[in-house]
Amino acid sequence: MVNFTPGPSQLYFTVSDHIKRALRDGIPSLSHRSSSFEKISQKTTEGLRELLSIPSSHAILFTGSATEVWERSIQNLVEAESYHFVNGAFSKRYHEIATQLQKKALALEVKEGQGFTEPVVISDSAELIAVTHNETSTGVSWPLEKIYALRKSNPNALLIVDAVSSLPYPAIDFNQVDSVFFSVQKAFGMPAGLGVWIVNERCLAKAEALQKKGVNIGTYHNLPTLSSFAKKHQTPETPNVLAIYVLGHVVEDFLRRGILTLRRETEYKAAILYQALQTHPSLNAFVKDSSLQSKTVIVAEAGSKTKEITLALQTKGLYPGDGYGKAKETQLRFANFPAHSKEQFELLVDTLETIR
Amino acid sequence: MVNFTPGPSQLYFTVSDHIKRALRDGIPSLSHRSSSFEKISQKTTEGLRELLSIPSSHAILFTGSATEVWERSIQNLVEAESYHFVNGAFSKRYHEIATQLQKKALALEVKEGQGFTEPVVISDSAELIAVTHNETSTGVSWPLEKIYALRKSNPNALLIVDAVSSLPYPAIDFNQVDSVFFSVQKAFGMPAGLGVWIVNERCLAKAEALQKKGVNIGTYHNLPTLSSFAKKHQTPETPNVLAIYVLGHVVEDFLRRGILTLRRETEYKAAILYQALQTHPSLNAFVKDSSLQSKTVIVAEAGSKTKEITLALQTKGLYPGDGYGKAKETQLRFANFPAHSKEQFELLVDTLETIR
Repeated sequence: MVNFTPGPSQLYFTVSDHIKRALRDGIPSLSHRSSSFEKISQKTTEGLRELLSIPSSHAILFTGSATEVWERSIQNLVEAESYHFVNGAFSKRYHEIATQLQKKALALEVKEGQGFTEPVVISDSAELIAVTHNETSTGVSWPLEKIYALRKSNPNALLIVDAVSSLPYPAIDFNQVDSVFFSVQKAFGMPAGLGVWIVNERCLAKAEALQKKGVNIGTYHNLPTLSSFAKKHQTPETPNVLAIYVLGHVVEDFLRRGILTLRRETEYKAAILYQALQTHPSLNAFVKDSSLQSKTVIVAEAGSKTKEITLALQTKGLYPGDGYGKAKETQLRFANFPAHSKEQFELLVDTLETIR
Repeated sequence: MVNFTPGPSQLYFTVSDHIKRALRDGIPSLSHRSSSFEKISQKTTEGLRELLSIPSSHAILFTGSATEVWERSIQNLVEAESYHFVNGAFSKRYHEIATQLQKKALALEVKEGQGFTEPVVISDSAELIAVTHNETSTGVSWPLEKIYALRKSNPNALLIVDAVSSLPYPAIDFNQVDSVFFSVQKAFGMPAGLGVWIVNERCLAKAEALQKKGVNIGTYHNLPTLSSFAKKHQTPETPNVLAIYVLGHVVEDFLRRGILTLRRETEYKAAILYQALQTHPSLNAFVKDSSLQSKTVIVAEAGSKTKEITLALQTKGLYPGDGYGKAKETQLRFANFPAHSKEQFELLVDTLETIR
């Protein structure tokens, strides 16, 4: 059986073995203040640095979830005003969190299935610009150049990229963004329970300045605290040691396969599925503008055939994700992560073609 | 090898099998919005309710860590003033977090190794009284009656009990406390990455009142949000599904063994170790007042013999925990959790007796 839900998704095929080895080697019983843990944490962050080409100007921090980063990023990077691009449930939730934290949270909202193609003027007072690289609910992705352009036209604001359901696919140039975050249960193919938050020195300086001004930036997981522990390859609290260990090994597996191979395979699998949607009599890509079509979460409109197609796929052991929210009855979502092989995508496409 | 460090500690002996079964059954790939996940979450909370005799007036919530509960409890239960009993590194950190959150955080602080035996007058303006049932750094425990007495004399304040390194041992009467929390990597013998926060209706009402007043109580993990998702057996964010699953099964194992048996065995193991410390020529219990001696984290003063004794124990495969902080060179800590068998404690005691 293959799970195409966009997260939690299919486990990457090496994850079980990494967990079993961790249990055998007593990893979960290690003190998070021991040098053994520091080595594990260092291996993971150095692996991520290599895999994603993260420069030394950016620190790699661990949180409980990407949801937590939504909250921590607003607390630590915004005194008064943030600006959000909203085009689906997850970008909307990020915007809501800023509002709940009593910030002036501006949003440019477009309809589901749409992206942001026109240039936008953002007020100088915006301290943080929040972009959801890949809106998991609708399968709309930002072209990276459009994200970089935001910082070029708003050099004083910090630019943060929610890359939850896309990394490691996008080759993000970290020199052109201030912060990026993701969680491990999507494209890294791991059990949920760990968020990864990447921040540059501008972010840290902003958090320190807010703290100095007396703004409440939180406690054990504020940026200065996270960052000072990260320098020692530690975390402020007892973290999800097992997940940090497994992530280090999954990253090593990805490095061995090669990031270029992973990216090429992602593109191949996306291409054959979008092609199948285009030619299928009862299916359509939900996102019409091909420059905005996500490579990692592919959303199909199936209308009244949704249930029938789901059942037919399930008979072959292929489990699509439901459409998000009210689209549950009319759409299907297909995660395209490193855990999903080319052969599985070929089987998916072949099976779709037999359902007419 | 047996790990006596007080957390992360020895895994409970069934944990590996529960994790392996979870992997085989695809638990980490389940959607946290699916009925399968709701059933897992429900099994875990119902099991905890039975094991710890938690009445229906108290909700059981999941966080990333107990450290997170330190922060969330202050955010959600305190508008202006909290009161903390501080007698070691962990109770001190809780107090610091309240200060960092810009509350008037009062503390009664006593020396390490001491507890709170005298009645204390707490100002009526304290909204929350924070008690660390078992100070993991020093091995000092509160007699439960003394905790209950705090609420009797301060009926308007909420009473919260940090039971991180003691539960499931103490038979807490939840009707006499408002909130209790713990993390799973201590006496529940699991990998770290999950906190459990138990709150009654007074706590929820307080958080809602603060929210209504415009106080910032946080976002996805504020009490009203956690509690409304918990009613559906869900969590606001994608949680550590694997840990919630394993906790349900460990609790089932504990129920099968019987909570009374677990408690009796804990007392037996503590008794023989304290007895050994009393008769040993080079060892002493750090906590002198026997009514305050923790049953679950036993701290021994070993002075200049600390290193020698550590090495001698390690030769037998028995790994004591270091003393906390500056006590590293002169103390040893021994966790006494359900994962530590009577036979292992007997071997520990016998081995200590051969080191003179």
